[in-house]
Amino acid sequence: MISANHFELLSSDGPARTGRLITPHGVVRTPAFMPVGTAGAMKGLHWRDVRDAGADIVLGNTYHLMLRPGAERIAALGGLQSFTGWNGPMLTDSGGFQVMSLSELRKIDERAVTFRSHIDGAMVELSPERSIEVQRLLGADIAMQMDECVRLPADGSDIERAMQLSLRWAERSKLAFEGAPPGNMLFGIVQGGDVPRLRRESANNLAAIGFHGYAIGGLAVGEPQPVMLAMIEEVAPILPLDRPRYLMGVGTPNDILEAVARGVDMFDCVMPTRNGRHGVAFTRFGQINLRNARHADDPRPLDEESPWPATRSYSRAYLHHLVRSGETLGAMLLSEINVAYYQQLMADIRQSILQGTFAELRQRTRAGWAKGDIAPR
Amino acid sequence: MISANHFELLSSDGPARTGRLITPHGVVRTPAFMPVGTAGAMKGLHWRDVRDAGADIVLGNTYHLMLRPGAERIAALGGLQSFTGWNGPMLTDSGGFQVMSLSELRKIDERAVTFRSHIDGAMVELSPERSIEVQRLLGADIAMQMDECVRLPADGSDIERAMQLSLRWAERSKLAFEGAPPGNMLFGIVQGGDVPRLRRESANNLAAIGFHGYAIGGLAVGEPQPVMLAMIEEVAPILPLDRPRYLMGVGTPNDILEAVARGVDMFDCVMPTRNGRHGVAFTRFGQINLRNARHADDPRPLDEESPWPATRSYSRAYLHHLVRSGETLGAMLLSEINVAYYQQLMADIRQSILQGTFAELRQRTRAGWAKGDIAPR
Repeated sequence: MISANHFELLSSDGPARTGRLITPHGVVRTPAFMPVGTAGAMKGLHWRDVRDAGADIVLGNTYHLMLRPGAERIAALGGLQSFTGWNGPMLTDSGGFQVMSLSELRKIDERAVTFRSHIDGAMVELSPERSIEVQRLLGADIAMQMDECVRLPADGSDIERAMQLSLRWAERSKLAFEGAPPGNMLFGIVQGGDVPRLRRESANNLAAIGFHGYAIGGLAVGEPQPVMLAMIEEVAPILPLDRPRYLMGVGTPNDILEAVARGVDMFDCVMPTRNGRHGVAFTRFGQINLRNARHADDPRPLDEESPWPATRSYSRAYLHHLVRSGETLGAMLLSEINVAYYQQLMADIRQSILQGTFAELRQRTRAGWAKGDIAPR
Repeated sequence: MISANHFELLSSDGPARTGRLITPHGVVRTPAFMPVGTAGAMKGLHWRDVRDAGADIVLGNTYHLMLRPGAERIAALGGLQSFTGWNGPMLTDSGGFQVMSLSELRKIDERAVTFRSHIDGAMVELSPERSIEVQRLLGADIAMQMDECVRLPADGSDIERAMQLSLRWAERSKLAFEGAPPGNMLFGIVQGGDVPRLRRESANNLAAIGFHGYAIGGLAVGEPQPVMLAMIEEVAPILPLDRPRYLMGVGTPNDILEAVARGVDMFDCVMPTRNGRHGVAFTRFGQINLRNARHADDPRPLDEESPWPATRSYSRAYLHHLVRSGETLGAMLLSEINVAYYQQLMADIRQSILQGTFAELRQRTRAGWAKGDIAPR
C-alpha cells in the first residue's frame, strides 16, 4: 500500500521542485504552505477565506483534536473535513510534538507517551499505533508517524537516542497504517537534531522503510537558520527524489524560500495567523508592525498592488486603529492578509520553478524585503 | 434645514409602521435594526457579512471614536464610512451615555460633562455642541442630541432634573446642527425614566422643538419589559407620525416585536454580537446555548430552513466544539448567525406590515420561541 506514489513532479529548477500531490480530498500544488487549523479551526479566518487565499491543504493538530472534541466523535460526525466544513486535503501531525510541548509529560518509554491532558487533567496514552488510529479516525489525507522531537541545543547522546526511538516508531507506524483507506498517505519524519551524521542515518533508514513522503522534523526549534538549512542540505539528497518532502513547523517567508531552494516541497506554520493576531502583516515589503504610530494617519493600503482585496483596500490607518483598539476585526483582517501573502508567495514560487526563473524570484523577493516598507507620508 | 423630512411611510398595520429613511449613504428600510460597530468595527464580523445579512445601517459610538482614533483624524481620512469601509448609512450616538457608563465621571453641569478618558487618562470635555461637531466630523448620516440618561430605578426628582437638562441640551444641539451637510439628520431623545408624566412632557417639548426623528432613550437600563412598553405607549402617540422613532439600546427579538407593535421604527443593540461571543445563538426556536453538552454529537445545523448559510450549514457539534475550545471562529460564526437572524426578523416584520399580517407574524414568531429548540437526538 505504501509503495503507491501519489506525488507527481512537474518541473525542477536546480534543487527546487514543483509538483502535484493527489489526495482523496483533492490536489495539492507544491511547494505548498499549509495554514494551521489547530483545533479544527483557523484562528480568525473563515474556511472560505483560507480557500480563497489559495491554500490547497491545511494542517490539524492531533493532540488538540484527540482531547477535544475527541477522535471517535469526529469520526462519528464524518471526519474532520465534514466536521469543520473545510472539505479539502488535510494533514494531521502525530500529536507527539504537542504532548511534549504542551502537556505535563508523565512518561515516555519505548511503547508510548503517557501524559496529563491540559484540558481536563485526565491521563492519556499515545503510542505510535494509537496516533495512527486517531489520525485515521480524524480522516487525515496525510498522517504523520509519531516521533520524539528534541529541543535544540541538546546533547548528542540525547539527540541520538530520540532519533533511534523515532526510527523504531516509524516502523511501528507503518505497520499500524496497513489497511488505511486507499489514497491516504503516511509520512516518516527525519530526526537527528543538528548532528549531520544522525540526520543522514535517520534519512537513510526512513528511505529504506519506505513512506509516501518524508518530513524533516526537529528543526525551527531554537537553532539559527544556517543550522536548519545545513540539515536540509544533509538530508534532501538522501530522500527519494519522487516523494514529497515536508519541513515541519517552518517558517518565515525567507525560511520557505531558502528551503525550497534546497528541495523542500511542503511547509506548515502558525506564523501568519499568530503574527496577524499580534498586529504584524507579512508583505512584499517585509513584516510591517501595524501598531506603529507611523500608520495612524496613513490612508494607503498595505500594498496597493496586492491581488488580495483586504491587503489593497483597507487603509493602514484603519488597521492601526483596529490593532490599537484590540478589535477582533484587526486580528481577522491581518490573519487573512498574512495567509494570503504566504499563499501568493507559494504561487509565485511554483510559477517561477515551472518557468525556470526561481533564482530570479528568490533574489527579487529578498531584495523587496530588504528594501523595507514604503516611506511614511 | 431640520424641517426637511427624509422619512417616507409606506404602510401601517395598527400602530406598526414600515417605511424608508433616505440618508446620504443610502436607504434604510424600517423597522430597522442597527448592529453596533462600537469603535469602527463590528466585533467578530466582516463588514461584507453585515451587509450580506441585510443590515442597511449600523451604529458607531461617538465616545469610543472621539477618544480613539479621534474625530478629527477620522474626518481627515474621509469620515467613518470611508475609514471603515462600511460605506453605508451610519448613526452615531452622542457619546453622553458612555461617558456616564464607562468613564470616571468628573463633572456634569449645565454646560458639559467633563470626564477622564478610560484609554489614556486625559481629561476630556463633551458639550452638546462638541458632540454635534464630533458626529459631523465622523460623517454620521444621523446624529443624536446629547442627553442625560438616568439608570432605573431612580428618584423622580433626579429623573425630572435629567429630563429637563436633556431638553435644554436638545435645543442647543439643534442650534449646533445648523449648517450640517444636506441630507444629514438630527434626532432628539425623549427622557423621563419610568414616569409617564415626565415622558409625555419630554416628548411634547421635543416635538415642539422639531427634529428629523425622535429617539426614546433611558430604557432597557434595568427596568422590567412591561415598564419599557408602557413608556413607549405614553410617548408614541405624542411623537409626529411622519418622523422615525428609534428605541435606543433595545433589545431582545421579543422586545423588538413588542416595540414595533407600538409604533417604533428603529433599534440598536450589542446583543447579537455579545451573546454570540458567549456561545448563544438567536434562532426561530429561541436562544440556544451552544455550550450545552446536548449539542456535542449533533450533526444538525441550528436551523436547516434558515436562509443564512452559516445557520443552515455548520453543525451544532462543530459550533459546540468551537465555543468550548474558545476558538475565535465560534464567536465569529455565532455573531454573524445572530446578526443575520435579527435582520431576517426585521425583513419578516417589514413584509408582514406591508401585507397587513403583522399580528399573525408576531403571534407565530412568539409561538416558535415559546416552543423552544428542536428535540435532542
